[in-house]
Amino acid sequence: MGDFKLTTIEENEAITNRLLETGAKVGADSWQLRVKNQTPHCKFGEQGVCCRICSMGPCRITPKAPRGICGCDAHGIVGRNFLRFTAGGCAAHSDHGREIAHTLYQAKPEGPYKVKDPEKLIRIAKEWNIETEGKDIYDLAHEVAYVALGEYGKIEGYQNFTSRAPEHTRELWKKAEITPRAVDREIATAMHMTHMGNTSKPEALVRQSFRTGLSDGWGGSMTGTEFSDVLFGTPTPIETEANLGVMVAENVNIVVHGHDPSLSELICEYADDPEMIAYAKSKGAKGITVSGVCCTSNEVAMRRGIPMAGNFLQQENVVLTGACEAIVVDVQCIFPALGPLSKCFHTKFVTTSPICQMPDSDFVRFDAATAGENAKAIVKMAIDNFENRNPDLVYIPDTKQKATVGYSLEAIVKTLDGVTNSQVDETGTTKPLLQCITSGVIRGAVAMVGCNNPKIRPDYLHVELMKKMIANDIVIIASGCSAQAAAKAGLMDKAAKDLCGAGLKRVCELADIPPVLHMGSCVDISRMLMLAAELSKDSGLNISQLPVVGCAPEWMSEKAVSIGNYVVATGLDTFLGVDPYVSGSDQMCELLTNGVRDWVEAAYTVEKDLDKLGDLMIERIEEKRAALGI
Amino acid sequence: MGDFKLTTIEENEAITNRLLETGAKVGADSWQLRVKNQTPHCKFGEQGVCCRICSMGPCRITPKAPRGICGCDAHGIVGRNFLRFTAGGCAAHSDHGREIAHTLYQAKPEGPYKVKDPEKLIRIAKEWNIETEGKDIYDLAHEVAYVALGEYGKIEGYQNFTSRAPEHTRELWKKAEITPRAVDREIATAMHMTHMGNTSKPEALVRQSFRTGLSDGWGGSMTGTEFSDVLFGTPTPIETEANLGVMVAENVNIVVHGHDPSLSELICEYADDPEMIAYAKSKGAKGITVSGVCCTSNEVAMRRGIPMAGNFLQQENVVLTGACEAIVVDVQCIFPALGPLSKCFHTKFVTTSPICQMPDSDFVRFDAATAGENAKAIVKMAIDNFENRNPDLVYIPDTKQKATVGYSLEAIVKTLDGVTNSQVDETGTTKPLLQCITSGVIRGAVAMVGCNNPKIRPDYLHVELMKKMIANDIVIIASGCSAQAAAKAGLMDKAAKDLCGAGLKRVCELADIPPVLHMGSCVDISRMLMLAAELSKDSGLNISQLPVVGCAPEWMSEKAVSIGNYVVATGLDTFLGVDPYVSGSDQMCELLTNGVRDWVEAAYTVEKDLDKLGDLMIERIEEKRAALGI
Repeated sequence: MGDFKLTTIEENEAITNRLLETGAKVGADSWQLRVKNQTPHCKFGEQGVCCRICSMGPCRITPKAPRGICGCDAHGIVGRNFLRFTAGGCAAHSDHGREIAHTLYQAKPEGPYKVKDPEKLIRIAKEWNIETEGKDIYDLAHEVAYVALGEYGKIEGYQNFTSRAPEHTRELWKKAEITPRAVDREIATAMHMTHMGNTSKPEALVRQSFRTGLSDGWGGSMTGTEFSDVLFGTPTPIETEANLGVMVAENVNIVVHGHDPSLSELICEYADDPEMIAYAKSKGAKGITVSGVCCTSNEVAMRRGIPMAGNFLQQENVVLTGACEAIVVDVQCIFPALGPLSKCFHTKFVTTSPICQMPDSDFVRFDAATAGENAKAIVKMAIDNFENRNPDLVYIPDTKQKATVGYSLEAIVKTLDGVTNSQVDETGTTKPLLQCITSGVIRGAVAMVGCNNPKIRPDYLHVELMKKMIANDIVIIASGCSAQAAAKAGLMDKAAKDLCGAGLKRVCELADIPPVLHMGSCVDISRMLMLAAELSKDSGLNISQLPVVGCAPEWMSEKAVSIGNYVVATGLDTFLGVDPYVSGSDQMCELLTNGVRDWVEAAYTVEKDLDKLGDLMIERIEEKRAALGI
Repeated sequence: MGDFKLTTIEENEAITNRLLETGAKVGADSWQLRVKNQTPHCKFGEQGVCCRICSMGPCRITPKAPRGICGCDAHGIVGRNFLRFTAGGCAAHSDHGREIAHTLYQAKPEGPYKVKDPEKLIRIAKEWNIETEGKDIYDLAHEVAYVALGEYGKIEGYQNFTSRAPEHTRELWKKAEITPRAVDREIATAMHMTHMGNTSKPEALVRQSFRTGLSDGWGGSMTGTEFSDVLFGTPTPIETEANLGVMVAENVNIVVHGHDPSLSELICEYADDPEMIAYAKSKGAKGITVSGVCCTSNEVAMRRGIPMAGNFLQQENVVLTGACEAIVVDVQCIFPALGPLSKCFHTKFVTTSPICQMPDSDFVRFDAATAGENAKAIVKMAIDNFENRNPDLVYIPDTKQKATVGYSLEAIVKTLDGVTNSQVDETGTTKPLLQCITSGVIRGAVAMVGCNNPKIRPDYLHVELMKKMIANDIVIIASGCSAQAAAKAGLMDKAAKDLCGAGLKRVCELADIPPVLHMGSCVDISRMLMLAAELSKDSGLNISQLPVVGCAPEWMSEKAVSIGNYVVATGLDTFLGVDPYVSGSDQMCELLTNGVRDWVEAAYTVEKDLDKLGDLMIERIEEKRAALGI
């Protein structure tokens, strides 16, 4: 443990530069080059004051042209763009959840999709008042899955999962008229409200942004998380590794990328199949290595310990190693650049979803009914491609870090049970964590989430903020590309406890955890909602009173805005390092950073300066503590 | 009849100029001024090559920057923007349809909402395999309405109304994988596919654009049309008037504007109430005049003969008359400009829908349960406002034209029955029309639809193209703002037959119809789909073989693109006078103007030159005739 050392941003950058040299040799494009070509960005777009919602325009707001042709002002335009941004994010997350529910609907005892966590399935069924007694688990799975599918389009009522929120939170939603109805309906409403000649009042647009976001967080995303657990197992702590060094030069390297674990789970299974390994050996490889990028990676890391090759802005790097036989993608955050890039190498770029169809890819249409064959065909395709590798182009850096991942809510509670005196204390609750917080051993928690964005030096804010927080005895729960930034840096190595303040360090030692807890993929931010709800119920405090905040310092996708909206609407102050294209309207800024507090007891803070961002979060946590007198 | 004269574009422009002088006096803004401020438009936006779908950008494609930061090229960006445009339009139309279904769900024998066309209700129920025998008509209404609401979110299956399409059309859809599923699901899929890192392949984006459009045309819009007929009566020919001269200086003027007839129907009822008229008289007015703008106007004109004050780009003019006591709006195509503009006059700007909330308006939240009270309160508000009029600002031009409107499909068939020899011929079909077409007395039909757009001299293309078509014995069916352009010009006066070729003139005389048939509002383009389906079934020809085309020469809203997609996907060539922001991708242009023909036997033509546009339509109609040997 003594020789534990974080991997620095500079080291990662040096690796990237070395890989870009390979790219230059083969004439490859890269995001770094494209950023240069696309800079400076359009100021109207950055401020959110460009409107292309009808064909009278496009219109842009300037001091000399304060209204679009229809008369809409900057506030209406910014607000509409913000709501549409939210709708895009909600649609992405939630449709992912729907796919998982479809997969569960097709689960069979003989596979390829099975029920791995029947206990969770039964728990959900009971929550939803579905009779469980005496039912075959697969019949129950299909019944629950069908109800879940109905959550997207039901005519009446609100999202089932909102019953998990504390009563106070639900009351706030009701009063603000933002309790989420059917997921697809919220998306359709958002699109209708923002159609030409409809809502231009910022307040109404922000309300619908929140309602749409909540249908994601307490609807579609939670479906994605919970049903993935039912199908593939609820994560428990597991050892893995992170960064490009997880790829193995002698092996067939398959990289899974995207978000939906239905595909990657089967890829992992077939890559482990002795028949396939033998086949790989027959082709001159020593074996098969599956590693991941983005949230598909998080999914299989959390459940199988599959190593994480990198996060969002490293997706081109895995191809640039020259040692990637296939990059297999499902949905979301896939660079279309991977098409032309893969053509500069031997790499197969395999698209699999009707939702994500790209030029210059091999399309293997993935379907729950044929999933086994599809996955096997893809693994075989990668093996067959091994011999096409150009050895002169191969460079896999040896950089990687150990990481302990798999901290689902259930795993966290179980870890806490481990430090509970079971003779005296209640088990199965978050109370030990609350005791740590109340006593001040831990000052609070930050949920670090979100993407990379070239506007921020990749991983820099994620890692530096986490370091600052843990040094101040603030525990980090992380997901998505933020979690991978932590893992790559080494912050998910238990040895990272040495970077913590004395209180958090002691907790890490006692509970045998790293100071940054990997809670999963971006849909798994729903796990954080459930944790907040449990903390609220176990403490008797409102969520907004907890010394917990959210932070997406390097976010880039619409999903992040949908997430931001549901996290704020759940009562957690949320800190962003990138502006969500709203700076062009003071009314929208005021609403998002302050006004919404009247509805949901939380708001956004946008701050691009690293130190200020960190200080503001600590300040907010300390304010919450002071208000509680702890 | 001898002194029949069209109202010219120049005359309408002179009126507008006179009204703008009033506007200048009171410091009012106008779209004409805003267009000046917003011109020239952003070229990137116009070409569709600006992407704001994530926060890494915005990105714009140029020769030096051929890809966005993620690597998406112009084709992917244009395609995604086109699909999102379609999703916005589908959401607007379809949510309108949903509102009507909700209203039907709340219909009661005692009102305010009643079933006025039980026959149509029973017909729909039978089509949907809902038992009708021995059922109370209101119970049936609620049952059918509930099924209709389910069409927006059902888990499985396709839109019920697609069963109305000819079998050949349905086969094409199936093969192209564009048969529409639940409406909201198509919108959510569209938003997901266009999320960062998903589909960038134009073909896939256009397919989903078509599927989304079809869920509008053969789903949401058709629901809007059919259930409005059930509630408010299926239109039959009725006399009315059009243009600003329909407003009456001595009366309280209430202008209804928007799209959903639920509100305007009740406003009309209360404005006719003797108690309200007496109240208006007590306030110094001679009576109450309700007139309309945009599609709400079309709805109440078609069913009640309520006069049409104007179309989209005249919405500010009604306020500028100084004699508008209240402009009452529901949803869509409402200028936010009406807020500040109404403040320059005494006019009350009354918003009523949560979907359409605007600053500077009086918000009366309209709800089926309280609709009667709401409508009465609004009428009273307008009457009370009469005394606040500033007589110095009042100018109502005397220009107006007579119009015969109300040509639902049922009304057209009934009109055709009137010229049928009922001893010999089958009644209740479109066969007499087909005979006219086959014999060449009528060469074909053009469906003229869509908005105004300041990029085109208002009404110019609508009116000039219609004149050209009818002179060439091509009958016009019209809806939306296009229909109003025709009515304002006088083309819906039966006397306009004198502008027709000899064949069409004779048909107009025999059938006693104007040469331009008003089929309703923009959701009522579904009536045109049904007409095309009937013509196909009655002739044994495929829809694409009929000498019928669609044309939206001055379109501006996303709804128009959704419409265009479903019209093309139904097999009808569609001609646009404004480019749908796709010129930046040759691949997208080639697909939309040609490639899609392989799937649906029809495609788009974009042509901004009036003469060419007209010639191209005539040419296409003659090509179809030639292919049929007629």
